Amino acid sequence: MSGSRPSISVERYGDRLRRAAVAAGRHERDALLIGVGADLRYLAGYDALPLERLTMLVVPAVGTPTLVVPRLESLPARSCPAVAGLLVELVTWDETDDPMLVLAELVGSGGSGRLAVSDRLWASFLLGLQRAIPGATFSLASVILRELRMIKDADEIELLRLAAHAADRVIAEMAAGPLIGRTEADVAAEIRRRLVAEGHETADFAIVGSGPNSASPHHGASARLIRAGEPLLLDIGGPFDGYGSDVTRVLWLTGGDPDQGPDAEYRRLYDVLYEAQAEGTAAARPGVPAERVDAVSRALITAAGYGPNFFHRLGHGIGLEAHEEPYLVAGNAEPLAPGMAFSIEPGIYLEGRYGARIEDIVVCGPSGPIVLNEAPRELLVVPG
Amino acid sequence: MSGSRPSISVERYGDRLRRAAVAAGRHERDALLIGVGADLRYLAGYDALPLERLTMLVVPAVGTPTLVVPRLESLPARSCPAVAGLLVELVTWDETDDPMLVLAELVGSGGSGRLAVSDRLWASFLLGLQRAIPGATFSLASVILRELRMIKDADEIELLRLAAHAADRVIAEMAAGPLIGRTEADVAAEIRRRLVAEGHETADFAIVGSGPNSASPHHGASARLIRAGEPLLLDIGGPFDGYGSDVTRVLWLTGGDPDQGPDAEYRRLYDVLYEAQAEGTAAARPGVPAERVDAVSRALITAAGYGPNFFHRLGHGIGLEAHEEPYLVAGNAEPLAPGMAFSIEPGIYLEGRYGARIEDIVVCGPSGPIVLNEAPRELLVVPG
Repeated sequence: MSGSRPSISVERYGDRLRRAAVAAGRHERDALLIGVGADLRYLAGYDALPLERLTMLVVPAVGTPTLVVPRLESLPARSCPAVAGLLVELVTWDETDDPMLVLAELVGSGGSGRLAVSDRLWASFLLGLQRAIPGATFSLASVILRELRMIKDADEIELLRLAAHAADRVIAEMAAGPLIGRTEADVAAEIRRRLVAEGHETADFAIVGSGPNSASPHHGASARLIRAGEPLLLDIGGPFDGYGSDVTRVLWLTGGDPDQGPDAEYRRLYDVLYEAQAEGTAAARPGVPAERVDAVSRALITAAGYGPNFFHRLGHGIGLEAHEEPYLVAGNAEPLAPGMAFSIEPGIYLEGRYGARIEDIVVCGPSGPIVLNEAPRELLVVPG
Repeated sequence: MSGSRPSISVERYGDRLRRAAVAAGRHERDALLIGVGADLRYLAGYDALPLERLTMLVVPAVGTPTLVVPRLESLPARSCPAVAGLLVELVTWDETDDPMLVLAELVGSGGSGRLAVSDRLWASFLLGLQRAIPGATFSLASVILRELRMIKDADEIELLRLAAHAADRVIAEMAAGPLIGRTEADVAAEIRRRLVAEGHETADFAIVGSGPNSASPHHGASARLIRAGEPLLLDIGGPFDGYGSDVTRVLWLTGGDPDQGPDAEYRRLYDVLYEAQAEGTAAARPGVPAERVDAVSRALITAAGYGPNFFHRLGHGIGLEAHEEPYLVAGNAEPLAPGMAFSIEPGIYLEGRYGARIEDIVVCGPSGPIVLNEAPRELLVVPG
């Protein structure tokens, strides 16, 4: 809520709604049906609660968009930029109404409508729509909205930058210790508190992988006690005015004893990873296919003999969702374009022993990569 | 993670899986397809991350259940009670595989399968299943699982009680002030910190409605400054070992000035509400239809002339989801049964002026209601 953060203007929402309608028409869809979530926030500025009561923005290819909300939500809905700015008509339904009938009325229940629903719309709503509008065909709205949402504007990039810096500060705070002798879960709780204290709305994830747990990419945080002489992987983030942070750094905890530093294999593994992350980042330029960036990093890791130990994609897009398009993964030939934002996060995992990952959020700039995170990427050898 | 909290045993998960399979057969479904969320946690003890990569538990009416996860998640998946306890087989898919083909193989892509999907499964997955298994018919798993999940066992009720008491403590802490002169958003941030400090995993919601904002049932928390001489509505909660808290109390802030106490209309409104909440609670007994409990509270509010100002249902079930069945709403004839847990939360809202709501979590006991919240329900007139 700080005044210095950029905010998205009503005009921008108007632009987005118009472009979404045009894109829907180009994709031969009669309307977009957008449930609660990132698409709704993107198009209408409405950060609605995910409720079992239907909230749905209908964006027809031709005509005025309508936001359907339970009456209970009419005040917050009315004050969202798209409704307050008269870009969208508001329709409310009462506690004992059937909202599917309202929807069917809006999109025409009789016809052979071609409708695109938001990707995260709940099955309960999609099956309800399929029943209420039996003649319609349903597809995913992301096919249409991805072109808009993938390309971030300057305000969105600035929010991603503020988010990245906030997460970087938490990494620095945690590296200062103390860490040894605490449980992963306790450290994760501290990280969550600090993420919020540094400006995040919520602390969506705080992976704390100590010792062998650093070899599980999506380890949570367990009751394991953190020890000296082992790595500690931190992968943390959450939304900041809706836009995500997501950073991974690895500490090696010595307990102040120089003999407890990283062993030769870990140093080698980390050097390979560091180079793979740097080269992948350097490859993220306009026109380069997303899968090519993955391949650049992967080739270096494979050449060093760790190919099977890097078993996830290189990265994911980020914005109003923690994971969104473009994905940097084999098979995705999407050419990178200025304004795309994504993680670059190679990892090497030796199951049962230890692992490492380095992750930054990177924006594809007009002439090359712009790295948003500023926390040092070197292995952080600290007393802990 | 405290040792004194009840935990669900592997045997209990075995029970739930068996009962779910039997119920699926009774409902003439060949299999349940359970995505990430409360159903998965209920059946397998697996609190998985909501990812764009498919995670799905397949519970056939006959045969062994299978958990399909992205390889990246294999370590956490393997350590969940149902997999570790050998109740469920684990199948992993690789980053460049199509998980829908794995699913089609498991449930039989050729036949006329009758499949039930979890209610909150994303449209992206449901449309993928509908394409991959074209002969199948899809319905909602809640129709089958509601019978299980609605009736809480003793451990689940104990977790709901611990959650309720943790939220009660936060209400008491906030009532002690200071509040006047702060923004709603600042107070909400403090509530979120305190919810976590009192044991919640996350602080899912912190409604802070001051003055006229108390008349919007789902108001969030704005930049409005909280003043003396007005009500402050707090509706707060989050998951506690997965089980939700959800409590609403209203403070009236005097600023220490006796002349700034509640006016006559607010006192009257609150008295009506207090009685409606107490009588609704008293009506929540085994065999009573859910809608009847709503009607009991509503009749009192309507008789006092505030009928149109109470425009939401009386309550919602609570457990692994913040809102789940049974809903206390007109049209729901479901008879209450021992072990059901739900909110009782009538509200009276005078738009533009002020409003009030009182909310407890109540369990239907064998011989009557058991109220889990212990925070005083009276209007809390405090200096602020």
